Amino acid sequence: MNPEPRLIEVRKNVLKQNDMVARALRERFRAAGVFVVSLVSSPGSGKTAFLEKTLTLLRQNFRVAALVGDLATENDAVRLARSQAPVKQITTGTLCHLEAAMVAKALEEEKWDLNQLDFLFVENVGNLVCPSSYDLGEDLRLVLISVTEGEDKPLKYPTIFNSADVAVVTKTDLADAVEFNWDAAYGNIQAVRPGMQVFRLSSKTGEGMEDYLQFLSARLAKLRSTVSV
Amino acid sequence: MNPEPRLIEVRKNVLKQNDMVARALRERFRAAGVFVVSLVSSPGSGKTAFLEKTLTLLRQNFRVAALVGDLATENDAVRLARSQAPVKQITTGTLCHLEAAMVAKALEEEKWDLNQLDFLFVENVGNLVCPSSYDLGEDLRLVLISVTEGEDKPLKYPTIFNSADVAVVTKTDLADAVEFNWDAAYGNIQAVRPGMQVFRLSSKTGEGMEDYLQFLSARLAKLRSTVSV
Repeated sequence: MNPEPRLIEVRKNVLKQNDMVARALRERFRAAGVFVVSLVSSPGSGKTAFLEKTLTLLRQNFRVAALVGDLATENDAVRLARSQAPVKQITTGTLCHLEAAMVAKALEEEKWDLNQLDFLFVENVGNLVCPSSYDLGEDLRLVLISVTEGEDKPLKYPTIFNSADVAVVTKTDLADAVEFNWDAAYGNIQAVRPGMQVFRLSSKTGEGMEDYLQFLSARLAKLRSTVSV
Repeated sequence: MNPEPRLIEVRKNVLKQNDMVARALRERFRAAGVFVVSLVSSPGSGKTAFLEKTLTLLRQNFRVAALVGDLATENDAVRLARSQAPVKQITTGTLCHLEAAMVAKALEEEKWDLNQLDFLFVENVGNLVCPSSYDLGEDLRLVLISVTEGEDKPLKYPTIFNSADVAVVTKTDLADAVEFNWDAAYGNIQAVRPGMQVFRLSSKTGEGMEDYLQFLSARLAKLRSTVSV
């Protein structure tokens, strides 16, 4: 009566297949010299507002585009379109994560010339569990937590923090209103992922965005210096 | 190369088995005359603060207990213990939802006499996708959204709103700070689940808690009037 072992076996096959597609994507991105950033967080952490701000500011100096995942609605693509950057919505139906094949399919449909891009952003479905295991071929995975979610999220969702490269604490404009304890939050992130770089910023006021954008520029420059584009 | 159909088939078996355990639980709860409420939401919506407030206030007149699910940590059980109510943590490892068998196992371990309880609360793992499909034998499923998450969550996560019985909008004390649009949020809930009852409250200030607690009392009275305890 216990179907778990079979379920795990089937899941392994799905993940293995995803890894193959992700590897092919990563090679394509690398060859085109585009730096790919994926964003994960719980629903309502402010991924879309953060991405809109990022696209709007980066567009002044770079060529940017974004893919955005959700179970339903085109709302995020509509919001992000305000940044004037090319944006494509991916709807996953009942799936709580993006898969590499969805990214590949969206790129195929949009026919974006990756050689003409500096940054490609991929906003995952809002979920702190499911996206952990799915490589999307990205260069950098950002995990966002908002100050309104509380300081203990890294301890409760260690896997997603471990699968991410950088953490971003958002909605700092609300920090005082919710009595957010920065030291506790930072300590919890470091407990789960020692040495993880953490940005704190507000997409609303723009506070802290500059450091983050400089970090992205530096990473792009580093990528370009190791790849012949 | 496409393992989806097999995955779906195995998932169906898991769900079928869960439904059987949930049905047995529901019969036990019904026979004992305990009213069981489960809580679902995204991480950081304020489930635990809301539950702590609920337990603290209900304890004045009722016998209450709570089970609380998380991937990792006993943090929530520690927080909820401040309410003086019996609380048991369930850690799910990498699973993004509770299953009926976990509830059954926790009850077995704690050896709570269900006949001596009026309300049992079950706080699910923070996730707006995974818990949808898993019946836990509850009488009432509450879906929480906080004002800081934005008004569009019902449209983006329709399944979890459809699987819930009642919606609770939390953190109303922050509504002005985040320019929360109540009419839009209410409209989106009704668009997904017409007629759904919606409470709005702040666990911090206590605003709106009275209506919610009266609602629970009425539901318990109704349960008791249809069951011989």
